[in-house]
Amino acid sequence: MKRPWQGQVEPPLLKTVPRHDPHNPLCPGATRANGEVNPDYDGTFLFDNDFPALQPDAPSPVPSDHPLFQAEAARGVCKVMCFHPWSDVTLPLMSVSEIRAVVDAWASVTEELGAQYPWVQIFENKGTMMGCSNPHPHCQVWASSFLPDIAQREERSQRAYQTQNGEPLLMEYGRQELLRKERLVLASEHWIVLVPFWAVWPFQTLLLPRRHVRRLPELTPAERHDLASIMKKLLTKYDNLFETSFPYSMGWHGAPMGSEAGTNWDHWQLHAHYYPPLLRSATIRKFMVGYEMLAQAQRDLTPEQAAERLRALPEVHYSLEQK
Amino acid sequence: MKRPWQGQVEPPLLKTVPRHDPHNPLCPGATRANGEVNPDYDGTFLFDNDFPALQPDAPSPVPSDHPLFQAEAARGVCKVMCFHPWSDVTLPLMSVSEIRAVVDAWASVTEELGAQYPWVQIFENKGTMMGCSNPHPHCQVWASSFLPDIAQREERSQRAYQTQNGEPLLMEYGRQELLRKERLVLASEHWIVLVPFWAVWPFQTLLLPRRHVRRLPELTPAERHDLASIMKKLLTKYDNLFETSFPYSMGWHGAPMGSEAGTNWDHWQLHAHYYPPLLRSATIRKFMVGYEMLAQAQRDLTPEQAAERLRALPEVHYSLEQK
Ligand SMILES: O=P(O)(O)O[C@H]1O[C@H](CO)[C@@H](O)[C@H](O)[C@H]1O
Ligand SMILES: O=P(O)(O)O[C@H]1O[C@H](CO)[C@@H](O)[C@H](O)[C@H]1O
Repeated sequence: MKRPWQGQVEPPLLKTVPRHDPHNPLCPGATRANGEVNPDYDGTFLFDNDFPALQPDAPSPVPSDHPLFQAEAARGVCKVMCFHPWSDVTLPLMSVSEIRAVVDAWASVTEELGAQYPWVQIFENKGTMMGCSNPHPHCQVWASSFLPDIAQREERSQRAYQTQNGEPLLMEYGRQELLRKERLVLASEHWIVLVPFWAVWPFQTLLLPRRHVRRLPELTPAERHDLASIMKKLLTKYDNLFETSFPYSMGWHGAPMGSEAGTNWDHWQLHAHYYPPLLRSATIRKFMVGYEMLAQAQRDLTPEQAAERLRALPEVHYSLEQK
Repeated sequence: MKRPWQGQVEPPLLKTVPRHDPHNPLCPGATRANGEVNPDYDGTFLFDNDFPALQPDAPSPVPSDHPLFQAEAARGVCKVMCFHPWSDVTLPLMSVSEIRAVVDAWASVTEELGAQYPWVQIFENKGTMMGCSNPHPHCQVWASSFLPDIAQREERSQRAYQTQNGEPLLMEYGRQELLRKERLVLASEHWIVLVPFWAVWPFQTLLLPRRHVRRLPELTPAERHDLASIMKKLLTKYDNLFETSFPYSMGWHGAPMGSEAGTNWDHWQLHAHYYPPLLRSATIRKFMVGYEMLAQAQRDLTPEQAAERLRALPEVHYSLEQK
């Protein structure tokens, strides 16, 4: 962190996004690429991605005779979920009850797509720095016919830990972080937020329920309300860190579903990962390059330092502060 | 790839870099952050990074009583290697014999640091998009007291394959790609370049010797000369793809060294990975975000399409072409 920075500086944020733009395919009443017209929605709005990376009928590859050239069809569906009818808000600027509607929509889409697919990946790319190409507040939902790599790794680790220790890894981990406090960012009645011991991104966090919950649809009304409230606090802190609309990719991981949803997945604990790229300021990011791509992640500040900085930040959004 | 792109566009390249800048700490004769003055070098130049991420005397962390909170000291050294005395050249614009000097310097530094450390990671971050903060042509060398994550994964895979099949994974893999040809980009007497079957970056490549070679210092003079020549061809194709100084991170992986250098590492095959971020043009990159960070890499074009495009490109640099 002492290194002088003469490298790439990100462009400052575009000024203001109009609240409604009839040409933005994510807005209420707009026409999308496939010719469909969006309803005049006033809460969340879920629709099929017009440019899906996964398709339900992807053909199977020609089988290979060689063990090093094995491939399988990746089938699935891709959906887009708008969080709010307005383009000029973000989650931390929405009310707790508006965020609660997003939580409910996440739970429903998980249930709906999980009836067919073993993995339902909800993720939000926020900010142009994270490859987001539309400023309207939204996330994506990609459901797949297979467990993706990272889901498989979490499955292996959580299963091995449960077998050895008789309880879910992330239950014990969360309890330890609550005791140790040094990496804790926020704690509420039902949730905790911490910078994980294994964090690679400077201000990476993990959001965990206190109760053993395997999937989003299992959350009680009280847990959903509390989740909306702690998300608003976390994302407000994030925005306050560099007084900018803080970019990140985030997503939910829960127990696999699909045809095997009924088998024993008690080793899984629901959680969300937040991966924000910024390191030094609103325009200077962490580059995961060279050594990180070829050898191992290396941090520019410790998880404890990151947690301390996030803890110290106010829970009132900088743009709403009485100056 | 059909998706319209309204997202982040990278800034165009800074115009010209001056050939010599007395204030650039990588230039011959310049004064570095620690007060040392660089020699008037005329080939490659290796020196200690003034802001090392790894240090030989890093303290050991306080031992933890809990299995989920285990940490170990990461010790090592970080060096910087300038490729050329001029700031306004890059590898593809250097002569084959100048590149050959870089190959020899890579072999020497591997031998030197490998006498003490089990892993010597040579890597180049090229371009501001890849976090490079100094335009002078250079790479870095980080030697560590431990095998980094990715080295451990390659160790496991290569060892398991050798145990099962009695020969190195990458020897059989390279031979298969030479037969199949669809992912091949370049082949010379001693080397091949291909877009690997498992590639995640759009124009990712793998550079492999044809002979079984475990580490850079084992390369014969003929293999070194041929390596310089195939690197010049590959990097010229890369620059020609979007008529820009093509950004990438690259690095070498070879058998572990240090105190265990003498044991059997025959399952290892030396190779270099090239990870370039560009996707559509000189200013539109692939974002490894959301789904990729939380679930699995997904490609916007197939490895075969990428290899075909690279194969078709001329081996004369666009900036040197007779118009
Ligand atoms: O060492 P540099 O060039 O200052 O820094 C660059 O390479 C490092 C090693 O890959 C990364 O950790 C940094 O994020 C990147 O900006
Ligand atoms: O789907 P989008 O927003 O067009 O695209 C974005 O998210 C995808 C899923 O993480 C990535 O593959 C793309 O690289 C990124 O630009």
